Amino acid sequence: MIRVSVFYPNGPQAKFDMDYYCQRHIPMVQRLVGAALKGTAVEKGLGGAAPGTAPSYLALGHLTFDSLESFQASFGLHSKEIVADVPNYTNTQPIIQISEIMI
Amino acid sequence: MIRVSVFYPNGPQAKFDMDYYCQRHIPMVQRLVGAALKGTAVEKGLGGAAPGTAPSYLALGHLTFDSLESFQASFGLHSKEIVADVPNYTNTQPIIQISEIMI
Repeated sequence: MIRVSVFYPNGPQAKFDMDYYCQRHIPMVQRLVGAALKGTAVEKGLGGAAPGTAPSYLALGHLTFDSLESFQASFGLHSKEIVADVPNYTNTQPIIQISEIMI
Repeated sequence: MIRVSVFYPNGPQAKFDMDYYCQRHIPMVQRLVGAALKGTAVEKGLGGAAPGTAPSYLALGHLTFDSLESFQASFGLHSKEIVADVPNYTNTQPIIQISEIMI
């Protein structure tokens, strides 16, 4: 299994609309990607390791697929439409990482 | 529910021993933290969004707790012992983020 994670960096001017993300963006991704998408997770940054510190990321989004090929064949077909929606909920430049699930 | 995520940055000299992490470090954390730990996940970085690019993080570790208070009361008691084990599997400076699970 692989996980495609999107990290939305925190910063002085950074904005992230969690309601839009959870209620509009993620459902759109689920509809477009379809059965190849095996799981979805969303997290809201609260803080860093030390109490009172800011989180490195305002939000994290994770999509689980059976394989890299499955991700590319499903998400890849709709990536332009999905990426075009990003400015509707954030002004940040997200970091994307593809990982293999070990545990 | 909250998630404590540890991101191990990639870099020219960065090393990460995934076998040690999965077989020694994570089991130690589970044993020390006990029942307060509601879930564990480990991921190995494969790449970035574009094919052939390097991952931002060599590895990601995630611990799930019922609340921030539960994390602090359980992990907090053993944090020195847990942190002391980090040089046994990596030479990177991990980024720690605490997040609220939204989906």
